[in-house]
Amino acid sequence: MVEYVGFLAAILGTICWLPQTLKTWRTKQTKDLSLWANLLILATVTLWLIYGILLGAWPLIIANAISIMFIGAIVTAKLIYK
Amino acid sequence: MVEYVGFLAAILGTICWLPQTLKTWRTKQTKDLSLWANLLILATVTLWLIYGILLGAWPLIIANAISIMFIGAIVTAKLIYK
Repeated sequence: MVEYVGFLAAILGTICWLPQTLKTWRTKQTKDLSLWANLLILATVTLWLIYGILLGAWPLIIANAISIMFIGAIVTAKLIYK
Repeated sequence: MVEYVGFLAAILGTICWLPQTLKTWRTKQTKDLSLWANLLILATVTLWLIYGILLGAWPLIIANAISIMFIGAIVTAKLIYK
């Protein structure tokens, strides 16, 4: 039960960024997005990736590598489409 | 070292939402925010809160309770200021 909740949270925590990434690149509108928030979120998932690498925990590595791509794409759009 | 990276990631993962929450409520502009993404993020941190409660893990409970307030405020603004 506990592991199931954690597993579901990890899966959801990876795919949750996708709608924002798709919306931002489709509309090319980033005015309402906070650059600071997205940079801090990117730093957070990068730290979780490093944590996963240090522990050799593949689920953490894979989930956070995917998150970095999604959030990195949002940050990139924010920097390009000011 | 490993614990330090995880601790830093947990702290950063809590405060990272604050700039978006402040920006959204200050500007009342939510057009570029994805409602789906923010609802999924809210569901994710709620699951991590439940996970923390099931484990009796206070750092998880406190960090995710704070995140729920920040992200809940973003979702609320998105629903009010369409």
